[in-house]
Amino acid sequence: MSKRPASHHLRYREPAHEGEAIEYLCKRVIYRGRSRFQAIDIIETQLHGRMLFLDGIAQSSEMDEFIYHEMLVHPALLSVSRPEAVLVIGGAEGATVREVLRHQSVRRVVMVDIDGQLIEVCREHLPGWHAGAFEDPRLEVVVEDGRRYLERVEDSFDAILVDLSDPLEGSPAVYLFTSEFYRRVRERLNPGGAAAFQGEGVSPQQVELHARMVNTLKSVFPVVQPYPYFIHSFHRPDAHILVPLDPAWSQAKFVESVRNCGLPLRYLSPETARAMFCLPPYLWKAYERYSRIITDDDPSPERKAGG
Amino acid sequence: MSKRPASHHLRYREPAHEGEAIEYLCKRVIYRGRSRFQAIDIIETQLHGRMLFLDGIAQSSEMDEFIYHEMLVHPALLSVSRPEAVLVIGGAEGATVREVLRHQSVRRVVMVDIDGQLIEVCREHLPGWHAGAFEDPRLEVVVEDGRRYLERVEDSFDAILVDLSDPLEGSPAVYLFTSEFYRRVRERLNPGGAAAFQGEGVSPQQVELHARMVNTLKSVFPVVQPYPYFIHSFHRPDAHILVPLDPAWSQAKFVESVRNCGLPLRYLSPETARAMFCLPPYLWKAYERYSRIITDDDPSPERKAGG
Amino acid sequence: MSKRPASHHLRYREPAHEGEAIEYLCKRVIYRGRSRFQAIDIIETQLHGRMLFLDGIAQSSEMDEFIYHEMLVHPALLSVSRPEAVLVIGGAEGATVREVLRHQSVRRVVMVDIDGQLIEVCREHLPGWHAGAFEDPRLEVVVEDGRRYLERVEDSFDAILVDLSDPLEGSPAVYLFTSEFYRRVRERLNPGGAAAFQGEGVSPQQVELHARMVNTLKSVFPVVQPYPYFIHSFHRPDAHILVPLDPAWSQAKFVESVRNCGLPLRYLSPETARAMFCLPPYLWKAYERYSRIITDDDPSPERKAGG
Amino acid sequence: MSKRPASHHLRYREPAHEGEAIEYLCKRVIYRGRSRFQAIDIIETQLHGRMLFLDGIAQSSEMDEFIYHEMLVHPALLSVSRPEAVLVIGGAEGATVREVLRHQSVRRVVMVDIDGQLIEVCREHLPGWHAGAFEDPRLEVVVEDGRRYLERVEDSFDAILVDLSDPLEGSPAVYLFTSEFYRRVRERLNPGGAAAFQGEGVSPQQVELHARMVNTLKSVFPVVQPYPYFIHSFHRPDAHILVPLDPAWSQAKFVESVRNCGLPLRYLSPETARAMFCLPPYLWKAYERYSRIITDDDPSPERKAGG
Repeated sequence: MSKRPASHHLRYREPAHEGEAIEYLCKRVIYRGRSRFQAIDIIETQLHGRMLFLDGIAQSSEMDEFIYHEMLVHPALLSVSRPEAVLVIGGAEGATVREVLRHQSVRRVVMVDIDGQLIEVCREHLPGWHAGAFEDPRLEVVVEDGRRYLERVEDSFDAILVDLSDPLEGSPAVYLFTSEFYRRVRERLNPGGAAAFQGEGVSPQQVELHARMVNTLKSVFPVVQPYPYFIHSFHRPDAHILVPLDPAWSQAKFVESVRNCGLPLRYLSPETARAMFCLPPYLWKAYERYSRIITDDDPSPERKAGG
Repeated sequence: MSKRPASHHLRYREPAHEGEAIEYLCKRVIYRGRSRFQAIDIIETQLHGRMLFLDGIAQSSEMDEFIYHEMLVHPALLSVSRPEAVLVIGGAEGATVREVLRHQSVRRVVMVDIDGQLIEVCREHLPGWHAGAFEDPRLEVVVEDGRRYLERVEDSFDAILVDLSDPLEGSPAVYLFTSEFYRRVRERLNPGGAAAFQGEGVSPQQVELHARMVNTLKSVFPVVQPYPYFIHSFHRPDAHILVPLDPAWSQAKFVESVRNCGLPLRYLSPETARAMFCLPPYLWKAYERYSRIITDDDPSPERKAGG
Repeated sequence: MSKRPASHHLRYREPAHEGEAIEYLCKRVIYRGRSRFQAIDIIETQLHGRMLFLDGIAQSSEMDEFIYHEMLVHPALLSVSRPEAVLVIGGAEGATVREVLRHQSVRRVVMVDIDGQLIEVCREHLPGWHAGAFEDPRLEVVVEDGRRYLERVEDSFDAILVDLSDPLEGSPAVYLFTSEFYRRVRERLNPGGAAAFQGEGVSPQQVELHARMVNTLKSVFPVVQPYPYFIHSFHRPDAHILVPLDPAWSQAKFVESVRNCGLPLRYLSPETARAMFCLPPYLWKAYERYSRIITDDDPSPERKAGG
Repeated sequence: MSKRPASHHLRYREPAHEGEAIEYLCKRVIYRGRSRFQAIDIIETQLHGRMLFLDGIAQSSEMDEFIYHEMLVHPALLSVSRPEAVLVIGGAEGATVREVLRHQSVRRVVMVDIDGQLIEVCREHLPGWHAGAFEDPRLEVVVEDGRRYLERVEDSFDAILVDLSDPLEGSPAVYLFTSEFYRRVRERLNPGGAAAFQGEGVSPQQVELHARMVNTLKSVFPVVQPYPYFIHSFHRPDAHILVPLDPAWSQAKFVESVRNCGLPLRYLSPETARAMFCLPPYLWKAYERYSRIITDDDPSPERKAGG
């Protein structure tokens, strides 16, 4: 009986973005639970393979997580010469640290995620994501709010990767999108270091939060480079944002780093590196239009999607 | 973690009736598989408890299956004096035979269902439905098409209960709704016996198949008594149909049988027995309007629901 | 182009009951708007014809509103000898007054609904519901909260019909389901009068509110007679509740009134009248179990459905 | 009443890609109808503004159609020196011809679409799309199957834009994705001309049809340049494909053309022009993997999405 496909009636419903919902056909329900912080669902979907959802929002999928994670990690690490200490904020799936650990210069990775139960669940059910990274002796996992960690420690890092989910109303992530937080990120970066941030949606429909992130980062960092990518399982174009501190950083130099990195990547290549920072005019306009800085006093939470 | 409720994003989508769909919030997926004949899903829903779906269509739910099964079984058995041999066609869940076996006069029950794998799955995952009935030595399970069985055997029965799913286009059930089939049911009934049939929907919206079933049964049996019932998990009013062969059968006598049956039932009582055969005028009109007999040459399959 | 059916992609989604959603295929969108009190949608559905939704909840459908309205109005009016003055609370569609006005003894009908815009919309877009009732000189429409009206006026009535939507959290209807309200209904009834109430769901899944309504009414009225009905467009079994004040009222006498009423009804008949008050054992049990009286201090709102 | 938002219960359900469905909240239903060829729906959605759906599949949205149409038209026209005669196959919305007509060298545009009723509907209800293009004397509209037109006429063109919907099973579009069709396109192109094709999805999940299109085009044209773009309302990354015939064509020369074109575009700019042909490694792999040529004898229809 097991060889024939199951019915197509089981669905996972994501109230995706304000104004619409995505309904995924489920091949199998891998895990459902609820930690202190969020509902955790791991579903094997028909189109995207295994997917992780937090509070019903898609975080990553087996079929295209490589795009998200390669593009979050390598631009920052390849903007630093011989990165040794790396901080990952968020990233419970383990795929961000997986990509970090491919860099042989890296000696220490600290991953700070608020949700220890989520880490355990991902470790058990998303082996393709962490690919054994949790066993790497260079990795140190800290279960703590990322902002509190950054305010508490005095360690400094060559790269900081901020791998957060959306700053939904009422979520603690809201205070990891403010200029106060970004300033603390800067303080913990070594000279010549770099950071990268999950940078939210960049469609004409939903660009405000991204544009305000960019402007908020510009108020803190000398160079801010957003770069769009599109992954099918997010169902909209998104961007990450790179902030390289090396005064000699340039796109050309970055392309060279990619060319010489020696990593067999599936999305980032000298070719895509050359293209990735090129933005369409409508996005430049959005940066002019949505210029208000996000601060602790004036944060910018997303409303919870209906649907 | 296990004590907190899971997310409400997992849904089961039933393209219920032509023109609409029902979406059930899932607490847990109990079983999904596919037999030679159909997709089998057992889902723990939030509102109805555990439910069985075949090819996506709700068959019965933990919360109200007692209504369906009490009302299919007892009216027929209480229309026969001391029923001993009972045939159940369909009814893989085991709840129909469970109710049959509560009658102490019953010595032999034959249950014929085409789908042996479905029986196994129900036996394992719907213990509340069969309640051990499959272990009763009086029960004989035959895995065979119900119509073929009836045409093959020469055994006769005091009661025959036809517990089928909808005659959807292309399904073998289509030929268990025709006058040819009903004639064979009649031939296998002992004098003074009775049969009952799952009788489909009776709403003004979807009454045609029911009305034609009634008229088809009237072309074969001397007395045909439809009786509506309502179960929430079907999301529409349905009816069963009783055909008592005892020439002395009357509603009053039937109420007496219910009063004296000694079974602690939750739906059928002398009170509901007195009421159950009373039909609204619109239903009588439907019997006049949809008078075409269903035959092997002119069957009446339901179109598969979209949605 | 107009003769061919439109696509089946347009849907109306009703988060029907807690734990599920119904999705209706739409043939046409007749009206959408929002009054001071609620969102009003009138949709031509594929299965049920035209339907009225308030805040997304189905109120009645073209195909089966006759069942709801016949069964709300005539049991009460036929429990009073020659009703002349009738009060309808709610019922903006106009179908309740339509049925009231079929009784020739009726001289005055007061309809009190809080939502004047809803009345206008129904008058324009639901002609089949009111069937001209709003032009009848015997009808007086009052736009006011039903409870405030009852507390304000000193008029008395031979029959009072309480045709309300569900007492959802935060809705003003919540205080029209309490013993204080029922007492005021009783005070405004003439001796020998009768009232009927929309009585909510009676499935094993969702019977608590109905059972508490019955017990609350029993704390105020001498005779309380719930009677279930099932209409497809509500997707669950519901009941109305009759409270006749005539000390000589009996089911037998009521059946006689129905027999002699001379109205060509489609659902209520001497046959269904004889059956309608017969309740299944599980419902009697529910009345024992959910005995807490609903009061202004301890109301019983329904939570808003998710889905 | 009209100022307050309508309810959010009206939805448009797109069985988007195999394996999932998108549900759009509808602000308003603008048009629904069915031509000889397809169901046509124009809906004002909450997130994307007005949208056109054919047989339930999103074609373009008010918020991001500029990306789709700029990127289909200008790369081809800017790859030709002074294009005068342009053929558009498909494109009933009028936005493709709108963009073509912005080029002052253009003297004649022929738009061939099989569905005359669709053109009329778009002309009336999508004024933002055509922006008056249908009144331009340079435009000639031919209602005919695009393939039949190309096989019938002997006219030749400087640019041909193939703006088709997905080649769904059973649709006539299937034979506009084969090498035979592409050969005919080549024959009708003037020397130094260029064509562009709507090139389908490029996600790792759904790249096969695109990859086979590219390989099929390569079997016919000397230079084939796919270029991805992302539009939110398609909910997946897509690509167009450029085939320039000018032997002197190069990416650098193309960037110069964009820089000098003098059109105030919102997506295409020298910056995005420089980036657009840069492809990620996974896509290059897909071209190797899905190498089978699409032919009339072995077409590659997409299965209709369930959902």
